[in-house]
Amino acid sequence: MNYQSVLERIAEDVAPQVGHGTPAEYIPALASVDPHRFGMAIADVDGNVYGVGDWRQPFSTQSITKVFTLALALAHGGDDLWERVGREPSGNPFNSLVQLEYESGIPRNPFINAGALVVTDRLLTLTGDASRELLEFLRQECGNDRPSFDTEVAESESAAGSRNAALAHFMASYGNIANPVPTLLDHYFWQCSIEMSCADLALAARFLARHGLRADDSRLLSRSEAKQINAVMLTCGTYDAAGEFAYRVGLPGKSGVGGGIVAVVPGRCTLCVWSPGLDEQGNSVAGVAALDRFTTLTGLSVF
Amino acid sequence: MNYQSVLERIAEDVAPQVGHGTPAEYIPALASVDPHRFGMAIADVDGNVYGVGDWRQPFSTQSITKVFTLALALAHGGDDLWERVGREPSGNPFNSLVQLEYESGIPRNPFINAGALVVTDRLLTLTGDASRELLEFLRQECGNDRPSFDTEVAESESAAGSRNAALAHFMASYGNIANPVPTLLDHYFWQCSIEMSCADLALAARFLARHGLRADDSRLLSRSEAKQINAVMLTCGTYDAAGEFAYRVGLPGKSGVGGGIVAVVPGRCTLCVWSPGLDEQGNSVAGVAALDRFTTLTGLSVF
Amino acid sequence: MNYQSVLERIAEDVAPQVGHGTPAEYIPALASVDPHRFGMAIADVDGNVYGVGDWRQPFSTQSITKVFTLALALAHGGDDLWERVGREPSGNPFNSLVQLEYESGIPRNPFINAGALVVTDRLLTLTGDASRELLEFLRQECGNDRPSFDTEVAESESAAGSRNAALAHFMASYGNIANPVPTLLDHYFWQCSIEMSCADLALAARFLARHGLRADDSRLLSRSEAKQINAVMLTCGTYDAAGEFAYRVGLPGKSGVGGGIVAVVPGRCTLCVWSPGLDEQGNSVAGVAALDRFTTLTGLSVF
Amino acid sequence: MNYQSVLERIAEDVAPQVGHGTPAEYIPALASVDPHRFGMAIADVDGNVYGVGDWRQPFSTQSITKVFTLALALAHGGDDLWERVGREPSGNPFNSLVQLEYESGIPRNPFINAGALVVTDRLLTLTGDASRELLEFLRQECGNDRPSFDTEVAESESAAGSRNAALAHFMASYGNIANPVPTLLDHYFWQCSIEMSCADLALAARFLARHGLRADDSRLLSRSEAKQINAVMLTCGTYDAAGEFAYRVGLPGKSGVGGGIVAVVPGRCTLCVWSPGLDEQGNSVAGVAALDRFTTLTGLSVF
Repeated sequence: MNYQSVLERIAEDVAPQVGHGTPAEYIPALASVDPHRFGMAIADVDGNVYGVGDWRQPFSTQSITKVFTLALALAHGGDDLWERVGREPSGNPFNSLVQLEYESGIPRNPFINAGALVVTDRLLTLTGDASRELLEFLRQECGNDRPSFDTEVAESESAAGSRNAALAHFMASYGNIANPVPTLLDHYFWQCSIEMSCADLALAARFLARHGLRADDSRLLSRSEAKQINAVMLTCGTYDAAGEFAYRVGLPGKSGVGGGIVAVVPGRCTLCVWSPGLDEQGNSVAGVAALDRFTTLTGLSVF
Repeated sequence: MNYQSVLERIAEDVAPQVGHGTPAEYIPALASVDPHRFGMAIADVDGNVYGVGDWRQPFSTQSITKVFTLALALAHGGDDLWERVGREPSGNPFNSLVQLEYESGIPRNPFINAGALVVTDRLLTLTGDASRELLEFLRQECGNDRPSFDTEVAESESAAGSRNAALAHFMASYGNIANPVPTLLDHYFWQCSIEMSCADLALAARFLARHGLRADDSRLLSRSEAKQINAVMLTCGTYDAAGEFAYRVGLPGKSGVGGGIVAVVPGRCTLCVWSPGLDEQGNSVAGVAALDRFTTLTGLSVF
Repeated sequence: MNYQSVLERIAEDVAPQVGHGTPAEYIPALASVDPHRFGMAIADVDGNVYGVGDWRQPFSTQSITKVFTLALALAHGGDDLWERVGREPSGNPFNSLVQLEYESGIPRNPFINAGALVVTDRLLTLTGDASRELLEFLRQECGNDRPSFDTEVAESESAAGSRNAALAHFMASYGNIANPVPTLLDHYFWQCSIEMSCADLALAARFLARHGLRADDSRLLSRSEAKQINAVMLTCGTYDAAGEFAYRVGLPGKSGVGGGIVAVVPGRCTLCVWSPGLDEQGNSVAGVAALDRFTTLTGLSVF
Repeated sequence: MNYQSVLERIAEDVAPQVGHGTPAEYIPALASVDPHRFGMAIADVDGNVYGVGDWRQPFSTQSITKVFTLALALAHGGDDLWERVGREPSGNPFNSLVQLEYESGIPRNPFINAGALVVTDRLLTLTGDASRELLEFLRQECGNDRPSFDTEVAESESAAGSRNAALAHFMASYGNIANPVPTLLDHYFWQCSIEMSCADLALAARFLARHGLRADDSRLLSRSEAKQINAVMLTCGTYDAAGEFAYRVGLPGKSGVGGGIVAVVPGRCTLCVWSPGLDEQGNSVAGVAALDRFTTLTGLSVF
């Protein structure tokens, strides 16, 4: 398959939708991004990377990092994690406290904020430095030092972080947080602040297309664990639009409010698309459209 | 792949779990089934069928028919259906009225009872006889007349049907039911009552593995529609355990409280497994275990 | 106290608010009422009646009848009723199915629709004819035959009654309805259809101010039961605005979407006010204002 | 009325229920209280105090102080408070985050924890020292210096305070908390820690029976404001059992998990009862029974 020409065709097809939607507004660094940016990259399992548009432009990864934190927590600590966080779609807005209360402090899945706080809490306990561990991993997988923390974003997240503080204290009241809440929040916000380009994110996610193998061919996860993360991405990776995303795109994917989405074609390739305008569910409008075009043009859906 | 030996290996492996769980108890016909029954069948895209155990024994299909009713409603009436029913996982018990109220009478997806009532309502409007249309389709796809209504089950369902009556009246109050509620309920209960064997269900579902082509090679659904139904099955097909099912099995699947589960390996084959003991989410204990073994033994997950 | 001059003063004071709000629109007979009508009556414990404005004009009592049905069900059958219906404020819109589901088919109180259906179901079982029993009681208490069923309203209620049908079937699924749902709904809708004037409603409710004694001085309820009904009216009688009504008015009261409100000053008098324009919670705008003025002018709040 | 003999009769009647229920267990200081303690006091509007049992024994007032904090916030800052907190019964467990989320950070009433945090936040802004202001007021009203903070309790509350921290951060995310969360929590926990006897609490609450007048006959609240607080106590003062409490007791009341309940007979007297065993709703078993006996023996219900 000629990924380069597919990417160019997609860029042309979705051009009318670039600029639609609204960039995230809760922190200045996101609100001020030009909504007309669009980039997309594909990394095949052999490590070749293809791209179009702003594919080399770093952007704020935000919730996309949750999938890497999950992988690292499983790699370091194994299945015990699943006693503290579920694997079911949330069916509610992504910050919801409601289900957390009905389910006694066990978040529904690792990709809602509450769940990601638990995963970060676990990685923090396992490694002593969750955000550093994550950054190192990302740099190693994409083979360069460009992935980096954005101090301004981390500080803005912290200043706007009352709701995540509420979530963490609430889970602590159920005994589901092991570290001090302020420390945990720090690591959580630093993770969200990491800047990366489409090219580097596609490279970094390749272990999910390679059945658990890292860039250096060492094993991060078992074949079964890699498959499981893909399954959780498909059912829970795009906020409250997971059903819609599966219906339209049909690939495991994880989005962030920075406008990025990472998707996986198991055994074939990984994709990353970026465009800042978000739909009501918090997913990139042009990003979802681009992935929809990808599966239509290539037939490479999992279904 | 030698499906026959895979099936025999699975039957051996899951034997300890056959009899676990509890058969559905709300109607006598289900409560009285021997919980130690187990059967499994595979139909490949060429129409070859393989089986083990009670694979030729008819059982009560129950909610499995919802996937066929959905396919027929889409085939007859197209995408307009999606204005009346969503495509998101429910995140709540399968009879829940809660979300229906929060979402103004639009059920979350076509596989919860409320959603299936809307789909049946639409098929009834489109064809004049939803249950007969369904039965004819099933008979044609499996190439025999064994699929049949079970009068006792239909009457028991109706007698125990207060909650479905409540759902239908409630959606009618939002204008989302077009036919008289008693007529609609009749068709709904008759659909649930259909008896089929694993062999026949695997054959009947083959259009989902064949990208929309029926047994006679005519087209029921477009390639895209077939893919979409598989996506909805994966995210919504196993009640509140869709995330768990995707995690463990990694295939589109639809279960019924009769203890059956139909699953799809797109482009390869369809499976049907039956064992009456249910877990707390209403899915067959041995059935889920058998499909889990299948993907582990064959590597044929979508992820 | 000179009730007549108090009433005239109130009518003057609330004149600017008459016509505010919106009459109920779900059935034609209510939607077509002139929103500028206003009437108010007071009946003291000795049976003297005072009135102002449209106080002799019959209007649709709607949910006000729920308080009489409750009194009759307790008078005929006693405390067992409270095993089937709670006594707590609903905290949710008055038709809500949500709490009904969380609380397994036991409505929160006898004044939400679900609770009133249970009370009617019980009165129907106890007397064989709930709506006739209610009408006879009302006629006896106000000493004339003017209270009467409004056939057009009853039929409209029935035609618009999908949600009440849903509630009844839903409770039936929990075993909390003893009579056939269609029969129950009939009696429920006939009760809601009763037409009465402010004068007659104030007279009919006097047993609540007279500690359980009927107009003919026979005992309908014990002193304790009459007090209990007043308590339930205060905490649950005005839909989701019970807290606000207690805060502003400070009297037990029961409202209806026809624009009427009945209120009780224990040991002193009963009041009825009517004006069709409703606020967002379904209570008469001018009616609440008039009762607010009454307690301010007379100091006759329970607090 | 001979209050002393009434109290002695009540003590005798409820003796079998003293020791029933379970003391609060979330902090050691409450869990270790002897569950067989029982005391009750009445203060009439002239300042005479009557008592029985452990009526002079200080106990942990806990949520009872919420009614005093509310009165002080209204006295210092007036009606603007009601833009930040509602007046409706909660219909949900007293720590629930659910309604807070549905209602965008506005707590339903000032007596659930979330609401009391908002009231404390306001008093803190108005006075600079909410807990000191409260303590001084209580001491002045009961005319002695016995009311005092319990350091052990305050520190235990803080250590067990994750859920209240979550509530405060959550409301801060909606802009409904003006002070720094840790400062606010401090004041909140110190308020909860105040120790008082039944005698002193009955004296301190007299302004609610005296239409707003303090012990020194100066005015704390207008007649209308005092009436309004009584109304809010009646509809919201006893956690999720407000309807039941109104039904059984028929008086405005506020309970605490220390086992105390304060109640008001407007124009007549105030009562305080204490016994540590709580029912499932968090109200003192023997306390509710004693107040129930009081209204039955004296006829002094508001209904």
